[in-house]
Amino acid sequence: MSMGSFQDGFEEKIKEFIPGQSIDCIIFGYQDFELKVLLLKWKDLDLWSLPGGFIYQTEDMNLAANRILKERTGLVSAFLNQFYTFGDVNRRGVVHQDIRMDIFEFSDKIKEWFSKRFITTGYISLVKIAETNPVPDEMSDRCEWVSINSLPKLSYDHADIIRKAKRHLSTQLNYLPLGKSVLNNKFTMPDLHKLYEAILDRPLDRANFQKKMLKLGIFIRHEKHLTGAANKAPYLYSFEENKYAELIAQGIGYV
Amino acid sequence: MSMGSFQDGFEEKIKEFIPGQSIDCIIFGYQDFELKVLLLKWKDLDLWSLPGGFIYQTEDMNLAANRILKERTGLVSAFLNQFYTFGDVNRRGVVHQDIRMDIFEFSDKIKEWFSKRFITTGYISLVKIAETNPVPDEMSDRCEWVSINSLPKLSYDHADIIRKAKRHLSTQLNYLPLGKSVLNNKFTMPDLHKLYEAILDRPLDRANFQKKMLKLGIFIRHEKHLTGAANKAPYLYSFEENKYAELIAQGIGYV
Repeated sequence: MSMGSFQDGFEEKIKEFIPGQSIDCIIFGYQDFELKVLLLKWKDLDLWSLPGGFIYQTEDMNLAANRILKERTGLVSAFLNQFYTFGDVNRRGVVHQDIRMDIFEFSDKIKEWFSKRFITTGYISLVKIAETNPVPDEMSDRCEWVSINSLPKLSYDHADIIRKAKRHLSTQLNYLPLGKSVLNNKFTMPDLHKLYEAILDRPLDRANFQKKMLKLGIFIRHEKHLTGAANKAPYLYSFEENKYAELIAQGIGYV
Repeated sequence: MSMGSFQDGFEEKIKEFIPGQSIDCIIFGYQDFELKVLLLKWKDLDLWSLPGGFIYQTEDMNLAANRILKERTGLVSAFLNQFYTFGDVNRRGVVHQDIRMDIFEFSDKIKEWFSKRFITTGYISLVKIAETNPVPDEMSDRCEWVSINSLPKLSYDHADIIRKAKRHLSTQLNYLPLGKSVLNNKFTMPDLHKLYEAILDRPLDRANFQKKMLKLGIFIRHEKHLTGAANKAPYLYSFEENKYAELIAQGIGYV
């Protein structure tokens, strides 16, 4: 497969990128009470990757991560936190690299670029799937949300990276604005309960969860409209923005 | 100041290092109920730095961090966790770089190496000060434990890095073997209480702390020897190794 104009443009860009350093974005989405992750499928290969890219010499690393997130999802303002840098010598794993080199008929310059050791920094995000517009990059034919419980074959150490990102999400639960990132403006306690269960990947006692949460004093409770069946529906809540931000900064203290 | 034999050796090593990527170790020590950090003082300059170094092309990044820790402290087995990678374009800050270049009369090759942009990965550790043997590197005349509440003038973005490392220590309290890293094999609840206060940098209610801790079921309580004043002394505890490790892995659940 010839990469044509992509190849010309990329050869130019290589000169402006920092060699040996990449970024991978682990963008989690939450839908139907399930965590998903955004993946790209390589053209003509049964192989998937995390959305990633390189850092311009003149660009802060965190800004590069934001640029890459925007390029792949159209999103600007979702939280995007660095969580780990992967620096093992043989991150590349088995033979994926060579497969790709054969298929894409890259120029020697591009082959050399990709053949070097890369240290990659992982950035994590959690977004509302409905607000994203996934776009494949030049080497991919698909960009899709995949359930983290049924991941396809992944290149490099990307399966490891996703595992570690998932753990970061759960151990940093108290310090990340997770509820605000994916719930509707108005939500029920059962909605929040299910989100926490999905992130922690274990059942949480419902009554106890609700009691602990409401004690935090970060919610506005909305009045019910007493018509018909609505009276039996659970209360709707919103986050009280300032108090929520304050508590996230110092640690929510749940779990 | 001529760097003589260091310069020759370093020129050789440069070829084997990954360019543009460094490691900085934030090694905290705990002594007299106070947190300290290990710093190096530049020869002939009123300027301090974190212990750091570079990564060999053939070396995993985590192993490089362990090597650097060992070179500076003589320690092998302390926990050493990666916590953040600093990738801003102007990490270097003001003029420290140039000052150093003038003083040390480096060769052009070494000047070129140090003049490039570096992305640095921070590793954090907490150790017993008494077990360390701090050794300055070739560019430093002192390697010392300094109280984090009275830091000297620091090069690059090292003051920022220390601040961020300190925050990591407190937000990861539940997942790091902090008590085991710095307390004696047998310790009192007031000992543990003071350590937590130093790390969280705020007072914690003593009775409540003790109650919460003892509930975790990770301690062995030692019998008092009923002779003389010993009966009035607080109980001594040890960690029950397996249960402690298990709880650290899933999160201690304190704070």
